Amino acid sequence: MLTATELQFPSISAIPWGLPSPLATVPAADTAPFVLIGVLLSLVVVYLTSKLGGELSKRFNLPPVLGELVGGVVIGVSALHLLVFPENGAAAGDSQLMTLVQWLGHLTPEAIATIFESQSEVISVLAELGVIVLLFEIGLESDLRELGKVGYQAAVVAVVGVSAPFALGTLGLIALFHVPVIPAIFAGAALTATSIGITSKVLSELGHLKSREGQIIVGAAVIDDVLGIIVLAVVASLAKTGEVDLLNVAYLILSATGFLLGAILLGQFFNKSFESIAERLQTRGALLIPACTFALVMAILASTIHLEAILGAFAAGLVLDETDKRKELDQQVMPIADLLVPIFFVSVGAKADLSVLNPAVADNRAGLGLAAFLIAIAIVGKLVTGWAVFGQPGINRFAIGAGMIPRGEVGLVFAGIGTASGVLSKPLEAAIIVMVILTTFLAPPLLQWAFQSRENELAVEEVTPGVELVRLED
Amino acid sequence: MLTATELQFPSISAIPWGLPSPLATVPAADTAPFVLIGVLLSLVVVYLTSKLGGELSKRFNLPPVLGELVGGVVIGVSALHLLVFPENGAAAGDSQLMTLVQWLGHLTPEAIATIFESQSEVISVLAELGVIVLLFEIGLESDLRELGKVGYQAAVVAVVGVSAPFALGTLGLIALFHVPVIPAIFAGAALTATSIGITSKVLSELGHLKSREGQIIVGAAVIDDVLGIIVLAVVASLAKTGEVDLLNVAYLILSATGFLLGAILLGQFFNKSFESIAERLQTRGALLIPACTFALVMAILASTIHLEAILGAFAAGLVLDETDKRKELDQQVMPIADLLVPIFFVSVGAKADLSVLNPAVADNRAGLGLAAFLIAIAIVGKLVTGWAVFGQPGINRFAIGAGMIPRGEVGLVFAGIGTASGVLSKPLEAAIIVMVILTTFLAPPLLQWAFQSRENELAVEEVTPGVELVRLED
Repeated sequence: MLTATELQFPSISAIPWGLPSPLATVPAADTAPFVLIGVLLSLVVVYLTSKLGGELSKRFNLPPVLGELVGGVVIGVSALHLLVFPENGAAAGDSQLMTLVQWLGHLTPEAIATIFESQSEVISVLAELGVIVLLFEIGLESDLRELGKVGYQAAVVAVVGVSAPFALGTLGLIALFHVPVIPAIFAGAALTATSIGITSKVLSELGHLKSREGQIIVGAAVIDDVLGIIVLAVVASLAKTGEVDLLNVAYLILSATGFLLGAILLGQFFNKSFESIAERLQTRGALLIPACTFALVMAILASTIHLEAILGAFAAGLVLDETDKRKELDQQVMPIADLLVPIFFVSVGAKADLSVLNPAVADNRAGLGLAAFLIAIAIVGKLVTGWAVFGQPGINRFAIGAGMIPRGEVGLVFAGIGTASGVLSKPLEAAIIVMVILTTFLAPPLLQWAFQSRENELAVEEVTPGVELVRLED
Repeated sequence: MLTATELQFPSISAIPWGLPSPLATVPAADTAPFVLIGVLLSLVVVYLTSKLGGELSKRFNLPPVLGELVGGVVIGVSALHLLVFPENGAAAGDSQLMTLVQWLGHLTPEAIATIFESQSEVISVLAELGVIVLLFEIGLESDLRELGKVGYQAAVVAVVGVSAPFALGTLGLIALFHVPVIPAIFAGAALTATSIGITSKVLSELGHLKSREGQIIVGAAVIDDVLGIIVLAVVASLAKTGEVDLLNVAYLILSATGFLLGAILLGQFFNKSFESIAERLQTRGALLIPACTFALVMAILASTIHLEAILGAFAAGLVLDETDKRKELDQQVMPIADLLVPIFFVSVGAKADLSVLNPAVADNRAGLGLAAFLIAIAIVGKLVTGWAVFGQPGINRFAIGAGMIPRGEVGLVFAGIGTASGVLSKPLEAAIIVMVILTTFLAPPLLQWAFQSRENELAVEEVTPGVELVRLED
C-alpha cells in the first residue's frame, strides 16, 4: 500500500475538506447507512418484544398476539420509548433507539431527524406489508365455498355490528353527555369498524379460523371493513358540507361490491393460468413470486378504488386457496408472515398512547367518563351481533359477538381524521382512543374464553342435536 | 343510516373545510396511504422484471441474476424510468410510477415529491435487507470448516486482487493518461473491491458455491470487502489531510479481524444456546425469529465497527450453519430470500445509468478512453488472482479470477465519495461507473463459461491426479 509520505501531492489545498471519514461526524447527505442501522435495530427490538410477549402470553394460556400488543405498549410511546413514531408527535430525541444511533454515528441533530423520519416510514410500511401478508395468509386458509355458505349470516352480523354501536353511541352521546350532533356522529362512526387483523390472528391461533363461527366472523369483518369505509365517507362529507354526497356513497358501494364479486369470478379463471405459470417457471421463487405479485396487484386495486389494501390481499388469498398448489404456497408464505406480522402487532401496541388513561390529568378525567360509555357501547353493540345470526342452531353466539369487538387501527383512523378536522373535542378524542385500545386488548382473551367455555359446555352435554342437523344439511 | 337532512346541524360553519374525503385532492400530510401504494407498485414492477429477466436469461442458458440486472436496467434510469432513485438525481416527475400515483390520488406536486422520497427510501432499505438475507443464506450454505481449509488461499487471492488492480490502475492513469496523483489513487481504489453479492449468487445458481473454487472465491470476497473498507479509509483520509491516519487504519484492521474471529469463536458457544432457545419457544417462528434476530444483531455489530452489514449477516449464517437445525432453517429462509433478493438485483440494474456510455456526448468520449483502460485493468488485475493460488493443483484458476471481477455497489461507493468530494473529474467519474457496470454484467456469463469449459475439459481428460491428491489430503 502506498503511503502519503511516499507520494507528492500536487494540489492538496484544492481538495475540499469535509470528505466523510468513517470515524468523523457524518453530514446530513450521508444518512443512508444510518437509516439501515436504525431499521435493523428497530427490527431486533420488535422481534425480541414479540417473542418475549408472545411466549409469556402463551405460558399464561392467552393468545400470543395479546403479548405482542402489550409488548409493543411496553417498548412504545407509553413506556420505554424504544419504538416511537412521528405520527404520535414524537421527535428523534424522543426515541431511545435514535439517541443510540446518533451516539454511534456522531450525528448532528438535523441528520438524526432525517434518519428518524426515514426509519419510521420504513417500519410503518413493513408493518403494513405485515398485515397484508397476514390477510393473504388468512385468505389462503379460508375456504371460499365455506365462506359462501355463511355469507348471509356474515352480512347480517356486519350490518347489525355497524348500525347498533353507531346508533347507540351517537344517540347516547347526544342524550346523556350533551355532545353536539356532528362530534357525536363522528364518535359513533368510530365505534363501527372491526379490526379484521386482530380477530383473524386470534382465531388462527385458537385453531378456530375454519369453524363456522370463525368463518362468520371473518366474513362479517370483511363486510364490516367495507361498511366502515362507506361510513367514513358519509361522515367526512357530512362534516365538510353538511350534506351526504350520495354519488360518492353509491360509487363506494358499487366499487366495493364489484371488487369482491369480481375477485371471486376472476378467481375461477385465474386459478388455471396461475398453476400453468408457476409450472413453467424454472428459476427460484417460481410459485411464491407469481402468488405474491398477484396479492400485491389485488391490494393495489383495492387501494385505488378506496377500499383497504388488506381486503385485496385477503381476496387474493381466497382465490389462490382454490389451486392445487395451495399447500406448497401456504408453507412458503408462513416464514414470510412469521417475520412481517409481528412488526404490525408490535407497532400497533407501540403507537397506543396509554397516557390518555392517566386520571391525574384533568382533560383525561372528562374523557374517562365518555370512554367508559363508549367502551360499554362498543362491547354491547358488537356482542348483540351474535344473537342476530339466524338459521344456525347451536352456534356459539357469544364467540361471534366477541370476535367483532376489537376496533384496532380502523377506529384510530376515525379519531385521527376527527382530530385533524377539529370536529372532536380533546376529551372525546381521548375517549375514542381509550375505547380502541381497550377493545383491542380485551378481544383476544374474551374470544379465547368464549370458545373455551363453550367447549367445556359441549364436553358435558356432548354434541347438541342442532349442530348435527346443520352438519347433515351441509 | 341517518342522513344529513334528518338532522339539525348546530355549528356547521365552525367546521373547517379541507377534511379529506376519499375522492378529493389529498393534502401533503395524508401521503401515508400513497407511500404504501407506491411501494406496492414498485414491488410488482420489480417482481415482474426479475421473473421476466431471470427466466429469459435461464432460457439462453445464462445465470438468472444477469437477467435480473439487465431487467433492472430496462425499467430503471437508463430506459423506462419506472423505478428511479433520488440518488441518481431523479425527481418525482422522472418516475413513471410516481406519475401514475399522482394521477390516481389527484396529488399536489409537493405531496408526490414527499411520497417519492419515502417510497425510494423504503425500496432502498428493502434492497439492503435483500442483500443481507442473501449473504445470510450464503453463510448458511457455506461450511466454516471447508472455508477454514482454503483460508490461506482466499487471503492470498484477496490481497493480490486488491493490490494488483490498485497499483496497475493508479500507475497506469498517472503514466498513460497524466491524471493527477490523488484522483488516480481514488480510481485505483475503486478497482479493488469485489461484489460478494453478485459473485456468490452466480456461484449458488451454478451449483458451485461449495466447490473448492467457490469457497475460495467467497472467502476472498469477504476478505476483499474488509480490505476495500480499509483502502477507502486510507484514500479518504489521504484526500482530506494529505496524510494517512495510521491510528484509524490500525483500528479498522483490528476491529475487522476481531469481528470475524470473534464471530467464529462465539459461534461455538452460541450454537448450543441457539438450539435450546429454539426448542423452548412455543409460538410461531420459533426457529426463524431467533435466527433472523441473531443475523440482524451481527449485521448491526458489523455496521457499528464500520464494516459492511452484509459481512455480519454472512458471519451469522456461518455460525448457524453448524447447528442441527440448519436444514429446517435453510428451508424457512429460502422464501424470504426469494422475495427480498430480487429487489436488490433489480435495484442495482435500475440505478446503473447507461447514458454515460453514449459516445455522442463529449464528456463521455473522454471518459470512454479512460473506461476502456480501467476495464482492462479491472479484468486483468482480478484474473491474475487465480494464478496466485498455491498448493491446490488442478484448481480452476480461471474461474477464481472470473469470480473476483464484479465490482458492484462497492465500486460505486468510491465513485460517489470521489465525486462528492470534488476529487474526480467528470470523465474519470464516468469511466469508473462504466467500469463498475461492465464488470458487474460481464462476470456472471464469464464465471459460467469458466466452470463449463473446465467441466468439458475434465470430461475429456477424466479427473486429474492433482485433484485426487488434494482430496486424499483432506
